[in-house]
Amino acid sequence: MTISQELDRMISEVTNDLLSGAAELALRAVNIFRYAISDESGGDRSLPAIKSNLTMISRKLIKGHPAMAPIFNLCNQILFAAEKCSTTEELEAVVGKSLDEFETRLCNSASKIAETAVQLIPFGELVFAYSFSSTVISALLNARSNLRSFRVICTESRPSMEGRKLASVLASSGIEVVHSFDSAMGLFLPTCRVAFMGVDAVARPGLVNKVGSWLLALACRELNIPLYALTGTEKFVTDDQLFNFEDFERPGTEIWQDPPKGVTVLNRQFELIPFNWIAGLVTEDGILRGEADVEKYVDAIKVHSDLENYAVST
Amino acid sequence: MTISQELDRMISEVTNDLLSGAAELALRAVNIFRYAISDESGGDRSLPAIKSNLTMISRKLIKGHPAMAPIFNLCNQILFAAEKCSTTEELEAVVGKSLDEFETRLCNSASKIAETAVQLIPFGELVFAYSFSSTVISALLNARSNLRSFRVICTESRPSMEGRKLASVLASSGIEVVHSFDSAMGLFLPTCRVAFMGVDAVARPGLVNKVGSWLLALACRELNIPLYALTGTEKFVTDDQLFNFEDFERPGTEIWQDPPKGVTVLNRQFELIPFNWIAGLVTEDGILRGEADVEKYVDAIKVHSDLENYAVST
Repeated sequence: MTISQELDRMISEVTNDLLSGAAELALRAVNIFRYAISDESGGDRSLPAIKSNLTMISRKLIKGHPAMAPIFNLCNQILFAAEKCSTTEELEAVVGKSLDEFETRLCNSASKIAETAVQLIPFGELVFAYSFSSTVISALLNARSNLRSFRVICTESRPSMEGRKLASVLASSGIEVVHSFDSAMGLFLPTCRVAFMGVDAVARPGLVNKVGSWLLALACRELNIPLYALTGTEKFVTDDQLFNFEDFERPGTEIWQDPPKGVTVLNRQFELIPFNWIAGLVTEDGILRGEADVEKYVDAIKVHSDLENYAVST
Repeated sequence: MTISQELDRMISEVTNDLLSGAAELALRAVNIFRYAISDESGGDRSLPAIKSNLTMISRKLIKGHPAMAPIFNLCNQILFAAEKCSTTEELEAVVGKSLDEFETRLCNSASKIAETAVQLIPFGELVFAYSFSSTVISALLNARSNLRSFRVICTESRPSMEGRKLASVLASSGIEVVHSFDSAMGLFLPTCRVAFMGVDAVARPGLVNKVGSWLLALACRELNIPLYALTGTEKFVTDDQLFNFEDFERPGTEIWQDPPKGVTVLNRQFELIPFNWIAGLVTEDGILRGEADVEKYVDAIKVHSDLENYAVST
């Protein structure tokens, strides 16, 4: 297998994974970059060849998961780091360090968010959790290890059913889980005291997350249940970048294998939720309450020229 | 096969049908009663034996679909009709006539509702339709035969997927259908100009319909999309009777075949929607707008003593 075949295989594994959250997939993307800059890849070790590989990997990863901000921000950071380097050795060191930093940032974010979130879970109560998010999982497991007693209600998350993965992970850690289908949210939310969801991307217009989050947020607002979005600031993107999720469409056959003639099946995966429908964004810097709090992070983002105006369809 | 075995088989076919709407199943229940009072059943032809069979059929049908008002009202009407009869011949005639009347009422209702509903579909626009309802189908087919041009968006209706049945029936009649999963409602509703749903039961507290209707109604209110519930007045019940749907729970395995230990799967099928979230109830008597309009129908309902206080769990 050539280096590009091996990279393509690794990239496909990440882009075909519909069950994992954005932070989890970004950590796996870190390893793809590690492989690309390492000796073991055995490919062309010239500086232009490696830089060109980093751009190729970035574009394919972003195209695969255009709504997932941590993947975009990882790629963006790596391309800026590589740009400064004038030798292969320097690139190995600089990009390697940048990858370590990104990984550490993600893990530290998750742990700080978990510390904040534990305070939001009332003793002995029901917690609603939607879709699959490693950040939400780590918050709930942290709460459990702090001897908080609570139960979780979650739903399937059609069509990929990553809600089952959430239920399984929580149950295997000794958390009692109640599970149902997505449209039954309205039946179960009134019994919950708080709701949590992960996030794929955040910018001024709001936050992007798995389809169903809009209905969840609307129902929580109606029922006066605080809904918190758990997100490290590595999920913040520019306002333009935020709308990349609109280009992401999966095959209709994932929903209905053989629809009859005259039926068009649409399989869109993400949607935008306004900030004022949620109680707050729980980040490693504390709880942010809306556009004003988000602005300073978004303003600080610079997009690398290789990714600028990079549409998913290209 | 004895008469009671044959009746049990016919009843099971109706109670195990999770894909059909309330009006459709009530029409099939009519045929079960027809069989029970007819010569062809070949059972005990004494008056007490037939009356006892009618009570048994009524209770089993209601227990099988406790949320479906037309089934309750059919059974109620038949028991009142049978009560007056003092010979087998009289019962055959009186109950037979009552069955004919019920069937005619259901069909006339559907056709009058369809006439009213066609006025609610704007030319060339998108219509949202939820779950499966023969009343909604007949309204949409009537609109199509009136040369209205429109497209329908519908979702699956997990877990029984009767939304696929809706999509298939509409498409086979030449109506263009867009289909997706239930939690994607929020993505598609903003493109729709009107939404329709069927109904299982109506009383003063509101209307009962398939789970997901609460989220649909909430989203329609948020987006200013008029949501009409299409229902013949044979779906009106007493306030007590309305809450029978709460006793109806299906096996969790219909949602998740083999959940891991620690995960409880709940499969509830119906929920209550407040009147003030919908634009109106389209009935054979015109469009009703809320509790005040519904009251006179509900007040007129008398429940037969064999069905009074008849809890589903008995």
